[in-house]
Amino acid sequence: MNTLKFQDVAIKYKTIFFDAFGVLKNHKGMIEDIQKTFDFLDANGINYYVVTNDSSRGPEELAASYVKRGIYCITADKIISSGMLAHEWLAIKVQGGRVAYIGTKSSAHYIEKAGLKTKAIRDLDLNDIDEIAALVFLDDEGFHWDEDLNKALNLLRNRNIPVIVANTDKHYPVSKHDVSIAIGGLADMVERVSGKHFIRFGKPDAQMFMFAFKRAKEDNSELHRREILMVGDTLETDIIGGNKFGVDTALVLTGNTIPEMAEIRIKSSGIIPDYICESAVVTED
Amino acid sequence: MNTLKFQDVAIKYKTIFFDAFGVLKNHKGMIEDIQKTFDFLDANGINYYVVTNDSSRGPEELAASYVKRGIYCITADKIISSGMLAHEWLAIKVQGGRVAYIGTKSSAHYIEKAGLKTKAIRDLDLNDIDEIAALVFLDDEGFHWDEDLNKALNLLRNRNIPVIVANTDKHYPVSKHDVSIAIGGLADMVERVSGKHFIRFGKPDAQMFMFAFKRAKEDNSELHRREILMVGDTLETDIIGGNKFGVDTALVLTGNTIPEMAEIRIKSSGIIPDYICESAVVTED
Amino acid sequence: MNTLKFQDVAIKYKTIFFDAFGVLKNHKGMIEDIQKTFDFLDANGINYYVVTNDSSRGPEELAASYVKRGIYCITADKIISSGMLAHEWLAIKVQGGRVAYIGTKSSAHYIEKAGLKTKAIRDLDLNDIDEIAALVFLDDEGFHWDEDLNKALNLLRNRNIPVIVANTDKHYPVSKHDVSIAIGGLADMVERVSGKHFIRFGKPDAQMFMFAFKRAKEDNSELHRREILMVGDTLETDIIGGNKFGVDTALVLTGNTIPEMAEIRIKSSGIIPDYICESAVVTED
Amino acid sequence: MNTLKFQDVAIKYKTIFFDAFGVLKNHKGMIEDIQKTFDFLDANGINYYVVTNDSSRGPEELAASYVKRGIYCITADKIISSGMLAHEWLAIKVQGGRVAYIGTKSSAHYIEKAGLKTKAIRDLDLNDIDEIAALVFLDDEGFHWDEDLNKALNLLRNRNIPVIVANTDKHYPVSKHDVSIAIGGLADMVERVSGKHFIRFGKPDAQMFMFAFKRAKEDNSELHRREILMVGDTLETDIIGGNKFGVDTALVLTGNTIPEMAEIRIKSSGIIPDYICESAVVTED
Repeated sequence: MNTLKFQDVAIKYKTIFFDAFGVLKNHKGMIEDIQKTFDFLDANGINYYVVTNDSSRGPEELAASYVKRGIYCITADKIISSGMLAHEWLAIKVQGGRVAYIGTKSSAHYIEKAGLKTKAIRDLDLNDIDEIAALVFLDDEGFHWDEDLNKALNLLRNRNIPVIVANTDKHYPVSKHDVSIAIGGLADMVERVSGKHFIRFGKPDAQMFMFAFKRAKEDNSELHRREILMVGDTLETDIIGGNKFGVDTALVLTGNTIPEMAEIRIKSSGIIPDYICESAVVTED
Repeated sequence: MNTLKFQDVAIKYKTIFFDAFGVLKNHKGMIEDIQKTFDFLDANGINYYVVTNDSSRGPEELAASYVKRGIYCITADKIISSGMLAHEWLAIKVQGGRVAYIGTKSSAHYIEKAGLKTKAIRDLDLNDIDEIAALVFLDDEGFHWDEDLNKALNLLRNRNIPVIVANTDKHYPVSKHDVSIAIGGLADMVERVSGKHFIRFGKPDAQMFMFAFKRAKEDNSELHRREILMVGDTLETDIIGGNKFGVDTALVLTGNTIPEMAEIRIKSSGIIPDYICESAVVTED
Repeated sequence: MNTLKFQDVAIKYKTIFFDAFGVLKNHKGMIEDIQKTFDFLDANGINYYVVTNDSSRGPEELAASYVKRGIYCITADKIISSGMLAHEWLAIKVQGGRVAYIGTKSSAHYIEKAGLKTKAIRDLDLNDIDEIAALVFLDDEGFHWDEDLNKALNLLRNRNIPVIVANTDKHYPVSKHDVSIAIGGLADMVERVSGKHFIRFGKPDAQMFMFAFKRAKEDNSELHRREILMVGDTLETDIIGGNKFGVDTALVLTGNTIPEMAEIRIKSSGIIPDYICESAVVTED
Repeated sequence: MNTLKFQDVAIKYKTIFFDAFGVLKNHKGMIEDIQKTFDFLDANGINYYVVTNDSSRGPEELAASYVKRGIYCITADKIISSGMLAHEWLAIKVQGGRVAYIGTKSSAHYIEKAGLKTKAIRDLDLNDIDEIAALVFLDDEGFHWDEDLNKALNLLRNRNIPVIVANTDKHYPVSKHDVSIAIGGLADMVERVSGKHFIRFGKPDAQMFMFAFKRAKEDNSELHRREILMVGDTLETDIIGGNKFGVDTALVLTGNTIPEMAEIRIKSSGIIPDYICESAVVTED
């Protein structure tokens, strides 16, 4: 398989969208030497953004987690998360009432900042649901899966309300060998058991890329889709989503797609990145 | 919609297979006057069996639950459960090693009776899995959904073993309005997230009906499939399963399929029972 | 079920998106008196657009079909079709090579206008596929299903190229009782048999609404999503798509969703329109 | 990957079930030297049967096709096809009326032998469907895909009847590189577009193995499932079906599962054969 150096690819674009997990960081922390990539992009006047299916926290908290790991250039305004789409949707479509949520208090925090009233699923009383106007799946923590997923299911059986899934990922890595079921996987189960149609935000959905594109145009009003590169480790989210939206795509082999399998998976899935790079790290020599 | 009296249908058959939940009992206990049905069948020399997607307990314990509710004619030998198929499968295909299970101690009890060693998922140490020869989903209770479903997922990522789902139901009723996610729904989620193919036992699968047919032939060696009636409340399990196996089918309206919806759902699903009865109760007049 | 008069709903919005089939027209021609609706909207300064999953013809030909039926206000610039998205995608992502297509010559015509070379699937020689850069499903006519769908399948097995489905509909009505399998249904089959991931354009996908929104903003640069109403007859495309994109939605009962079933289907699907109207026709009284 | 010699595996069993395509034959004809395998089995008193998802012809014609290729030991009574299950089902469940079929005249021939009246889909008049009691998908030839699949779809919309799919395969090979969409793939499309539930016969379904087991017991009444080996080239049909039914399974690498991919596909699918052999041919040395 023919891989290219990341800098040789990146240099052709005006704006880069990076997936976070598997590209910029992994279960151990930041990918080694990733700062060199940001330095290279800054030096060449290339804008960059993190486009992530993470709805567990608001952009400020996400940015703070980069700072904690010594990366200062990923500021809140450079982060586009599926949680922000969910947030925007709730602000537009829910007028009045209360939004029930599944996740941590912190995941609900910035919904509240928009003036919406919330109710954690574990505090919900099924005898008092008339005020509930929507249900949103935010994070896999902050509730008891057993009783609270059943509670969510029965809420939907007894009240016909829209349901938002703010993160479409099925699982996420917690160590070299182990993963954890993500909120997207839990939401799929409740959707299937309830028979209802949920609304999902996050890659590969076009709405996510559109949101990121709009943000990128605030920094460069002349930006054309052809001038954007999406860099990701997952064919089924980053690459097919980017391809469909009409931006170019680069697959990196530091996350979900391991080097031995890349060629086979591209061939069998028909999801074809424009480039393959070993990593998103700028290498010297 | 044209419904028939249950006795007018039943009298044409030599053997009746009853689904349990929604047909013989509901969330409040036994369906009122269901004993009259058993009396009618006994008086007319018609054999009957309970054919149930229940893997939470062995046949003796299932029979005991009928006795507790005043029904003495449903003895252990009249009960065919999907758990029994799982049990039979494990006895044939697993030689040596240890079977990891998800469910209560009681659900694992009769696996152990067959001489197989078991390990409850919550007692499993992911660093010590070399002995595990299979994983079986038995019951939605007896474990912590959060940590133990993740443990099951990681077991499957680190060890390639067969997985048995002993109950295909997605949910079960716990009160007039409320349901609980069943082990079949949880297993579907782990299957989808893991990408593995699980082996499922339970209606509508033909193996369940074959197992019941074999049992019924022990009591009547001349029995032909045409002489059997499957009575159920669910089109997608009891009725299509019975239809496919080649027995006749009667839909009753005391459970999952409510009277107002029966006609619409038969038409839209294309799953056509041979008869529709308001209930499985023999009515006088 | 509580339905509202269309004019009482429409008057609240600055822009209306109409689905075509089942809303403006049906198998017999235009919905009776639909011109009154356009007159009402013109009189009130409300913009309107047709947003349709139709990739069988370009916008000029679609507009001509309205003229033929006596409707002169639906000009080409008021029509947004999924075919236009496919067209745009091909123009951005395919540089060089030749686009194989499944459909009529007329469906390929405006792809050619963009300077792309095309090859009808029935003229394709499987021994000469090196130049083929993409495959696009446009229309269910203009080819032999038997040999040409097999040819498409083998093209994909022997050459790893992106595949575009320009119309996601599964079937379309041809008379009061009968339907025809649409190109979306045929594409689903080839996708499943090939195991590849296809790229789909059309409602309910957000990209379609985004495209329509962008067009509508050309006529009213101040337009906000909240000021748009999507009017459709199908919960699974028009309504859930509109809901997700963040515009308001009105279900009409002149097409796929018949009055007797509307309430049941809204309840069981969890797809909730903001309004229900008997039709999109402005009625006097 | 560790492969075993076929004879070393086969010798442990009393009965062998062979898949046909990819195991005994391929697109060029019989697998070279496969006669040696039958000689070996005959010499060792091991019974063998062909268990095939082929509903295009009756067992006599299937046997004749082996004779034509110089194999005389595969007689009609050694062949178990999914078409035979469909046939049995129709004989049990359809009393009166007429069975509409999709396929060649020859595929319908042995349905007619059972005394059932048939009607080829291409001869069906949609204005005269009151007599049609069932629809059966038999073969991908003998009709026009375009008009006749639409006719089948509209038959199902206008008449609620059971639908049988007599072959679950999605595609079959026609040359080294090319395949053809099989009747199972076409049936899936009509099922999805119609929204109805079809009844499928064929591996991996247990009913197919049960039927074969019953046939094998006619030759050896003492036969136990543990004494049977299923030999197949496809994980998703032969192997998981055999595993689930409780017989042992051997994967051969002469068909759908190519040697380079076997290990990866076993690991990622979780479908684990008991043995892997390069082919079903008995090799000397």
